[in-house]
Amino acid sequence: MSETTDFAAAIRTIPDYPKPGIMFRDITTLLASPEAFRAAVDAMVAPYTDDGVALVAGIEARGFILGGAMSHQLSAGFVPIRKKGKLPLETIRVAYSLEYGVDEMEVHRDAVVPGSRVLLTDDLIATGGTAEAAVKLLRELGAEIVGACFVIDLPELGGRRRLEEMGVSVKTLVTFDGH
Amino acid sequence: MSETTDFAAAIRTIPDYPKPGIMFRDITTLLASPEAFRAAVDAMVAPYTDDGVALVAGIEARGFILGGAMSHQLSAGFVPIRKKGKLPLETIRVAYSLEYGVDEMEVHRDAVVPGSRVLLTDDLIATGGTAEAAVKLLRELGAEIVGACFVIDLPELGGRRRLEEMGVSVKTLVTFDGH
Repeated sequence: MSETTDFAAAIRTIPDYPKPGIMFRDITTLLASPEAFRAAVDAMVAPYTDDGVALVAGIEARGFILGGAMSHQLSAGFVPIRKKGKLPLETIRVAYSLEYGVDEMEVHRDAVVPGSRVLLTDDLIATGGTAEAAVKLLRELGAEIVGACFVIDLPELGGRRRLEEMGVSVKTLVTFDGH
Repeated sequence: MSETTDFAAAIRTIPDYPKPGIMFRDITTLLASPEAFRAAVDAMVAPYTDDGVALVAGIEARGFILGGAMSHQLSAGFVPIRKKGKLPLETIRVAYSLEYGVDEMEVHRDAVVPGSRVLLTDDLIATGGTAEAAVKLLRELGAEIVGACFVIDLPELGGRRRLEEMGVSVKTLVTFDGH
């Protein structure tokens, strides 16, 4: 989306992490670069600047870094989608599948004024399990999902398609083949 | 630090959470307000705009939200200080005390170019245990700590003094009495 920043080159790939055959995409190198981080945030928000985004929802934990920057840049608020047990007041929860078993994500029940326009973000979309859970939570609170954006897309894992089948528009900065 | 924003009023207090006698300061209400979140981030970075900050270091997880926004606003990079086991490459670790027992925080060994000027942030400074651990990690990597800034100070718990005794300048937006 930026004509001058090579986002793929700013992301570090770690072979065989966390297990053999997985190519782990590590965004800490992108985050540490003032130029790459700024360009990534600017490219992430650019499609939405005229969309009346009231809240950016970030998925714990890397989605907090990007989402915090994006909400500030869009002059929007921020809502954290957290792992269970981290939020102090009444929440709603949704289960999502992990490779082994399930876990739950949650959001404060009063986190979204119904009808609010919400932009979802995380660093990466892989199978889409956590993003799907986040969309369900936000919709249960009455949010209108403006879109979902990620730095990295791993399309072979099907997450983008999964969100699009829920009617969510997806934008990403970088696509990597494989897992 | 802002003349027009009442940050204390934007923070929600939850009595007796997570246990009787504790007044939990919940910043999700501040984050959800575009005006309060923007004013908080702007006030957090204002003292440092001419300090040549190369990296903002945020403490997992709420420090990621503020730190992401601050690094973008300062045109700096971002370095995550994480709970153990979350970072994919070689790390350095430091133990810190919890109410019961100890835990560890870590940072990538290559996260900071020695001599870099680093600004530390989190949502709240209480006993200062995690912030002290973060300062130790960053200094071990050769960082020059420009300062540490927090939305909330709970001075009775001694964290600010603990950091100042390490030679770290501390700035906060709101002070609450008690725990």
